[in-house]
Amino acid sequence: MKDLKLAGLDSERSIIEVDGVSIGGKEIILMGGPCAVESSIQMQESAAVVKKAGGKILRGGVFKPRTSPYSFQGLGMEGVNYMVQAAKEYGLLCVTEVVDTRSLELVVDKVDLLQIGARNMQNFELLKLAGKTNKPIILKRGLSATIEEWLLAAEYILSAGNPRVILCERGIRTYEPSTRNTLDVSAVGVAKELSHLPVIIDPSHAAGRRDLISSLSKAAIAAGADGLLIEMHPNPDEAVSDGPQSLTPEQFINLAQELGMVAQSVQRFFDFGTDDSLEALRSKIDLVDRSIVEGLAERMQIVRKLSDQKRLDRVKDANREKEIIQRLMSLAEELDLPAELVKKIYPIIFEYGIQTQIKSKIEQDKRLDPSCYYFGSK
Amino acid sequence: MKDLKLAGLDSERSIIEVDGVSIGGKEIILMGGPCAVESSIQMQESAAVVKKAGGKILRGGVFKPRTSPYSFQGLGMEGVNYMVQAAKEYGLLCVTEVVDTRSLELVVDKVDLLQIGARNMQNFELLKLAGKTNKPIILKRGLSATIEEWLLAAEYILSAGNPRVILCERGIRTYEPSTRNTLDVSAVGVAKELSHLPVIIDPSHAAGRRDLISSLSKAAIAAGADGLLIEMHPNPDEAVSDGPQSLTPEQFINLAQELGMVAQSVQRFFDFGTDDSLEALRSKIDLVDRSIVEGLAERMQIVRKLSDQKRLDRVKDANREKEIIQRLMSLAEELDLPAELVKKIYPIIFEYGIQTQIKSKIEQDKRLDPSCYYFGSK
Amino acid sequence: MKDLKLAGLDSERSIIEVDGVSIGGKEIILMGGPCAVESSIQMQESAAVVKKAGGKILRGGVFKPRTSPYSFQGLGMEGVNYMVQAAKEYGLLCVTEVVDTRSLELVVDKVDLLQIGARNMQNFELLKLAGKTNKPIILKRGLSATIEEWLLAAEYILSAGNPRVILCERGIRTYEPSTRNTLDVSAVGVAKELSHLPVIIDPSHAAGRRDLISSLSKAAIAAGADGLLIEMHPNPDEAVSDGPQSLTPEQFINLAQELGMVAQSVQRFFDFGTDDSLEALRSKIDLVDRSIVEGLAERMQIVRKLSDQKRLDRVKDANREKEIIQRLMSLAEELDLPAELVKKIYPIIFEYGIQTQIKSKIEQDKRLDPSCYYFGSK
Amino acid sequence: MKDLKLAGLDSERSIIEVDGVSIGGKEIILMGGPCAVESSIQMQESAAVVKKAGGKILRGGVFKPRTSPYSFQGLGMEGVNYMVQAAKEYGLLCVTEVVDTRSLELVVDKVDLLQIGARNMQNFELLKLAGKTNKPIILKRGLSATIEEWLLAAEYILSAGNPRVILCERGIRTYEPSTRNTLDVSAVGVAKELSHLPVIIDPSHAAGRRDLISSLSKAAIAAGADGLLIEMHPNPDEAVSDGPQSLTPEQFINLAQELGMVAQSVQRFFDFGTDDSLEALRSKIDLVDRSIVEGLAERMQIVRKLSDQKRLDRVKDANREKEIIQRLMSLAEELDLPAELVKKIYPIIFEYGIQTQIKSKIEQDKRLDPSCYYFGSK
Repeated sequence: MKDLKLAGLDSERSIIEVDGVSIGGKEIILMGGPCAVESSIQMQESAAVVKKAGGKILRGGVFKPRTSPYSFQGLGMEGVNYMVQAAKEYGLLCVTEVVDTRSLELVVDKVDLLQIGARNMQNFELLKLAGKTNKPIILKRGLSATIEEWLLAAEYILSAGNPRVILCERGIRTYEPSTRNTLDVSAVGVAKELSHLPVIIDPSHAAGRRDLISSLSKAAIAAGADGLLIEMHPNPDEAVSDGPQSLTPEQFINLAQELGMVAQSVQRFFDFGTDDSLEALRSKIDLVDRSIVEGLAERMQIVRKLSDQKRLDRVKDANREKEIIQRLMSLAEELDLPAELVKKIYPIIFEYGIQTQIKSKIEQDKRLDPSCYYFGSK
Repeated sequence: MKDLKLAGLDSERSIIEVDGVSIGGKEIILMGGPCAVESSIQMQESAAVVKKAGGKILRGGVFKPRTSPYSFQGLGMEGVNYMVQAAKEYGLLCVTEVVDTRSLELVVDKVDLLQIGARNMQNFELLKLAGKTNKPIILKRGLSATIEEWLLAAEYILSAGNPRVILCERGIRTYEPSTRNTLDVSAVGVAKELSHLPVIIDPSHAAGRRDLISSLSKAAIAAGADGLLIEMHPNPDEAVSDGPQSLTPEQFINLAQELGMVAQSVQRFFDFGTDDSLEALRSKIDLVDRSIVEGLAERMQIVRKLSDQKRLDRVKDANREKEIIQRLMSLAEELDLPAELVKKIYPIIFEYGIQTQIKSKIEQDKRLDPSCYYFGSK
Repeated sequence: MKDLKLAGLDSERSIIEVDGVSIGGKEIILMGGPCAVESSIQMQESAAVVKKAGGKILRGGVFKPRTSPYSFQGLGMEGVNYMVQAAKEYGLLCVTEVVDTRSLELVVDKVDLLQIGARNMQNFELLKLAGKTNKPIILKRGLSATIEEWLLAAEYILSAGNPRVILCERGIRTYEPSTRNTLDVSAVGVAKELSHLPVIIDPSHAAGRRDLISSLSKAAIAAGADGLLIEMHPNPDEAVSDGPQSLTPEQFINLAQELGMVAQSVQRFFDFGTDDSLEALRSKIDLVDRSIVEGLAERMQIVRKLSDQKRLDRVKDANREKEIIQRLMSLAEELDLPAELVKKIYPIIFEYGIQTQIKSKIEQDKRLDPSCYYFGSK
Repeated sequence: MKDLKLAGLDSERSIIEVDGVSIGGKEIILMGGPCAVESSIQMQESAAVVKKAGGKILRGGVFKPRTSPYSFQGLGMEGVNYMVQAAKEYGLLCVTEVVDTRSLELVVDKVDLLQIGARNMQNFELLKLAGKTNKPIILKRGLSATIEEWLLAAEYILSAGNPRVILCERGIRTYEPSTRNTLDVSAVGVAKELSHLPVIIDPSHAAGRRDLISSLSKAAIAAGADGLLIEMHPNPDEAVSDGPQSLTPEQFINLAQELGMVAQSVQRFFDFGTDDSLEALRSKIDLVDRSIVEGLAERMQIVRKLSDQKRLDRVKDANREKEIIQRLMSLAEELDLPAELVKKIYPIIFEYGIQTQIKSKIEQDKRLDPSCYYFGSK
């Protein structure tokens, strides 16, 4: 696409830095909060939950583009103040949607990022204005925008002078009625092939129903997204808008707890819970212990298979064991783990491996020649 | 949906068993092969690759529903024989698409599963026929079928007497031109809420371009899919159909190698490489060892943070350590790992944890009151 | 499109002849009847209405492709007999949908045309079968088929040996919820540029609601469609399927009455009512008389405007009048109207024209120079 | 839809008056002009063509919302002046698109109507602004807006105080690639059932190709649209934007010439050519004469059929003839046609009718009993 002069992928991917938060790097960035800011206490509660979950950015709408003129249109500046205050208190950044010159001017010096919504993706005058601010812009894909149009909308912002654009896929309009929109998870890959800009996913507007948020969030990260923008409300049933697609605080935290594993599976990371309470850290340790033991169990299973493949040749194994320990000790040092620990526990692990192999071999022989076994057991 | 009498989710999810392969259980099932069967050697090579990657099912089309009457229509029975032969040789199951009574009758006793393609999803006569066979049916979602229509198509098969239906999402038709279709990854979650049937994903037809297959496959698994149906061709550039969306053998194997981690991150598993050679098993062990040591390192890091939160209260810890060991020993037994191993290595792990905490505490104190340290070190 | 070897537009458009009915010529062909054949009496009543409206073809489904296996699946052969009988009695042709080999074989010798439905548009085996019959095929566009795919589906039938294919646009699947499907009226023009085959429209399935049928039917004809396939039921409220989109007999007849004018406006014709009762013919004459008098009035208005443009130069007019009469007498002969009639009435028409001009001129002068008038009237 | 407080259809349809032009009444309003204003001469030529065709409103974009920031963005105020000047010279109204506060304020006092484009349909701030002007607003439907969303966007304008909104359907985004968008012709009927606002159609953006404009324009009128907004350029091949979908002046005029008939067929009218030159008026008279004679011929044909139905009972006919003349004389008076003319020519028409019937009767008898004829002719 020749017109992606600035948005096009030339050499390396952009990492967008915002006050210590890096979007587009190894870390998956979680953003959360209610659709609309409703009160100070609502934002305080939301911020607490986002923080607890390991989120970095608090969201909340104050100038709401609503389909009907008679729907709640947002609290305006009052709402911004609630959000900014809450974000500050919990050490979070914050983002809100702007819809025209006036709203942009009102909030640009108060919030950390600006959002341009799906309905304004081709509001070119607003894009140009956003391009003249010094705040990062989260640019949502239009309801039925092609990926090319979306990137060209980003180009409007970039070419007006603002290099910090974060693309946000939020579902496209299709015929399928069971979801509010259809999450176009392919858009992550396509946008990243065409552009160096980070891509995040808003599963809430895509699905329009909270029961799918967990599934879609994990899919997004596995597909390569750089972050998630998720609607969460202290009390979804009483939300003034988008209640049915908002997670409860508990669901939000549970989801966040599961994201780390998915991030890791695609060589990214997500730090659940900057919550460093004794309780939180202990439950993290429990999770890690569980995965260590699962690892040990998997190792043992493979070792068992090995006994089908080879004689139990101790000499050969001895060399390999030595080599393994050497390798793992180096790794331990890299990872800031005392290498001694590896040196102490791996021989024990090997020992149990051997026992397992022997046991497995005997059972196998029995299966192959049951008579032999019965004789032998006499 | 009242008409999902048999397909609806009542109590538990279905696990579909086909000759030792379970679809819908903990294991992610990988199916692969060329769009169209072209020759014996092509199928042999394909089967070898699928096997090597840990795939369980070989695919290949022999009765091809082609948009134009002048496109290659498939090898018919000759092709089936090539595929069946190759699958047998490599210990794989095989699946092919049927398009009418005749093709169904020709292949039903030869292949292990039957596929009904997107274009025939509402060919109700074919569905009824498929419902009278004793072979599992992979039912692709129609190009623009709603999820409800898809499940009702499954209901046709079920109500005709065949309980083994596997749903396959393969992308839906939207306005977006950068992909052949748009993968509806939400369909996994929606279908699983409505129905007990397993759901797999075909990322190849969804994307129509091979560069997105890896991203979409991982997204599918993270979203909860039970398997993947991926087009792979020994030589995609010379494929008679769907070359641009077919992976090369190398890409297929590389992808498979990465699936295990993603599966694990959502409490599923995928065994890369049923390749049980000494070499293969050893490199698996190396991977597992690496993750065990990474786990130990992560544990150590959290333990370090703990020292910021609490006094080093050994008594309290002793209780917790005991409890941890107890819990992990139970887990070990569940996982068929000698519980003794846990009992032996965890005290060592704890010991290094304590040392780490003490070291961390001292460093922290130095930071907080450097003078004290310098005094102390005198 | 290179693969449209037989369907492509080379030289002239196809007119498909079926027992005296020509589809694709000047005449707009109306087809109507219930979604599903339910009883003998229902088909008798339907046939009477279709005939009365000027329809040529009776439709009725007997093998119904239904989304749910538990919906009414059609009366089968019993239904065909009801329809064939009714069509015969009222001098109509009839058409029904076939869904597989069996249903095709059962009805091919009984009905005059076969229909292949939207869900089977890419059931290529059925297309090939249809291509081997000697009956014209109404080929509906698939729910989300591109026009190219639709024409290639027609090519399957043509290339199998059957040259008589009638394309039928019936709405495509989009995100818009207020209609069951979205009528793609552009498809008429596009298909006719690419192919020589006739194109008809099914507004009933497109709209899914009867209140839009009239609007869409007229749009279809104005856009260049060759015919209409409309669902009508003697008692829509009790229809076993598609009641809400079926016209009542009265609505069907009223619509038909209005189609002639629209057809004429695009140089086509539709003969409402083969009902040749004294009463019917007289009300037709009344309509024609009305339009003649409206024509005369319009003529008079233009003549009035002429008086603003030119002096009342009788000599010049005399030549023009002669020429006009000559021209219209030739036209009359072509149209099988006694030329003498024109010769007798046109001088009278001219005479009144002159009088009108004079009157108009005087009024105009008054307006331009009121004083002159008041003087003149003294 | 409860929120259509002002846009909803309560009692009667709105007719929007703009300086003598009524949109939403019996007359079909034609609007035309280039996509973008390029020069003074281009607008002069365009205005001349629109006028000649019977168009009432000149269009031209000066603030262009373009997908890429590097595409031509419009001439701004310079362009407005060219358009306003040209419109004035040819007695046309003019309309241009506004995209934000600034552009709206610049043009609101210069042009006669304002347009809000598809991309800004949900730019709610712009809608509110437009609602505070005193100019009629042409509100285009968004690329993938539902009809409900479109009407609610209109409600924003109405509720802000501006009652004059004209809805404009311009095609929606679907999967079909052969047209730029898919004209949703059903939207005319649906919008008119829900709302009292006039609905016009923009076939140019819908089709994206000029060869379909004629077909779609006629379809639009037949479907009930109140007007057409068509792109026309003096030299499409050199247009800076949308050349391929712009009609040439000749095509525009030819199309306009054909619209009257279609309008009439649905009880509307369109006055081709406010061109009141002698030549133009005479060719209009020729058209009318042609249709009068065609009417007479059709009358004669029906009369011939009548002779099959009844005895040539003069007495009965005499009464009917009297009654017909009475009725038509009343009609004539309504239509400002001298009733005397009807009184003079209808007896002649009747006379020829009788002769035709007699002739027809004789021929029929001959057919029924040829022998009788041969005797008779001896």
